[in-house]
Amino acid sequence: MENQVTLVQETVVLTPDGSTRRQECLAIEMPYTVALNDEEIGASMVLETALEEFGAGFLFGQGYITEVGQVREVLVCPEGRISVHADVDEESRPKEVIITSGCGGTGKISREMLEGAFDPLQEYTISFNEISDFIRQGLQSSSLGRETHCVHGCGFWADGRLQAYYEDVGRHNAVDKIIGAILLGKFSAAGAIYTTGRLTSDMVLKCARIGIPVVMSRTSPSSLGLAIARRAGVTLAAYARPDRVNIFHCPERIVQS
Amino acid sequence: MENQVTLVQETVVLTPDGSTRRQECLAIEMPYTVALNDEEIGASMVLETALEEFGAGFLFGQGYITEVGQVREVLVCPEGRISVHADVDEESRPKEVIITSGCGGTGKISREMLEGAFDPLQEYTISFNEISDFIRQGLQSSSLGRETHCVHGCGFWADGRLQAYYEDVGRHNAVDKIIGAILLGKFSAAGAIYTTGRLTSDMVLKCARIGIPVVMSRTSPSSLGLAIARRAGVTLAAYARPDRVNIFHCPERIVQS
Repeated sequence: MENQVTLVQETVVLTPDGSTRRQECLAIEMPYTVALNDEEIGASMVLETALEEFGAGFLFGQGYITEVGQVREVLVCPEGRISVHADVDEESRPKEVIITSGCGGTGKISREMLEGAFDPLQEYTISFNEISDFIRQGLQSSSLGRETHCVHGCGFWADGRLQAYYEDVGRHNAVDKIIGAILLGKFSAAGAIYTTGRLTSDMVLKCARIGIPVVMSRTSPSSLGLAIARRAGVTLAAYARPDRVNIFHCPERIVQS
Repeated sequence: MENQVTLVQETVVLTPDGSTRRQECLAIEMPYTVALNDEEIGASMVLETALEEFGAGFLFGQGYITEVGQVREVLVCPEGRISVHADVDEESRPKEVIITSGCGGTGKISREMLEGAFDPLQEYTISFNEISDFIRQGLQSSSLGRETHCVHGCGFWADGRLQAYYEDVGRHNAVDKIIGAILLGKFSAAGAIYTTGRLTSDMVLKCARIGIPVVMSRTSPSSLGLAIARRAGVTLAAYARPDRVNIFHCPERIVQS
């Protein structure tokens, strides 16, 4: 079952010359709680797509799930609850948490995560032609961003093709859906992620923690987003367009042909 | 003392024709904890401007501070702590909390807030000429957005002039700085707020709770942002430009001259 994710609303357009009526398309934002092994962990407003992936990715972002293979089952209840069942170690629960960059409902990070070491990344390179296809195919795969101006998109490219492209009312949630898909075994982390959102610390941190070697954004990183990319050895590419990227760290993974 | 809020980083620009070097400006994101009467309530990554306002607004967004006049003193420690001292009722602490729209670190909302009644708004109208001056002056008051592409701006217009324009790495934080300035008595809530960020539920909710009659965004509302504006009777203006606004609710407060 596909959920309805937009609604149409009549608006009044005012200009110095007078007013006209117009129809606008709005993204539908819904509250969902996320539970881990029947315990409620948190809640978020979401766009109702890829909710299983979102549930798994949300718990990863919060530090409860830490690796691929832990999730056993995800049940989505349309009344607003995502129940994740996973083999997690009760001892390894996140401790002190920093709410991040005013955009961190699902991007909470702990000092442990910020200061800890990162596992080595898998070997991966991406060609400029692939980046071009990735961005074009990602943006063309949905018209929701253009229609509502109220969603962020996030795509994943690996093995020479677009593996997924998800959208959400939050830039974090869209990334969480990609990370959730990796946790659910839909594709491996050895690839490139592209987000329409800014790469603040929390965004780069969760990509680095799951082991994504190439992190790209349509827009910019923050200072701490860059600092985390350096520590983790992640390639950080900003202002990414089909014919241009600005590499802030580790250009070696991007090859010309 | 003015904090340094940007840094310059050399990047490699890749195009199909080869690579060049370029200097980019990054917004500096810093972690701050916020304490209320010596108890730590939460933390957020912020841009280090208007930190007193941020501290007060953050606690309002989280439901701890509820009205103008409660804040007695705000102390900012450059090591990363904002201590707010305020006369708050221990009984009125927020209960169950929803983390919001992947952009809700500082925009947490409780079901109480979502379902409760709103106080009547103060009388206020704004002319189209004022909207035009508001947006132009706001965007001209800082070059940080253009330089870094990594901050959101938020301004407040009342009594025929721009009262403040704040920026932050998070769209919520920038709004929290305006709300904090209202809580600290710098200006009254009877005016118009303009944000470069999207108007999801949490954004509209805090503006409505503090009693701002006109809420404007450079971009779009979500479905629930509009629903809250309707319940609170707030004027919701989207896609706001100096010569055009799209009114989603309550156009009566916007007058032609």
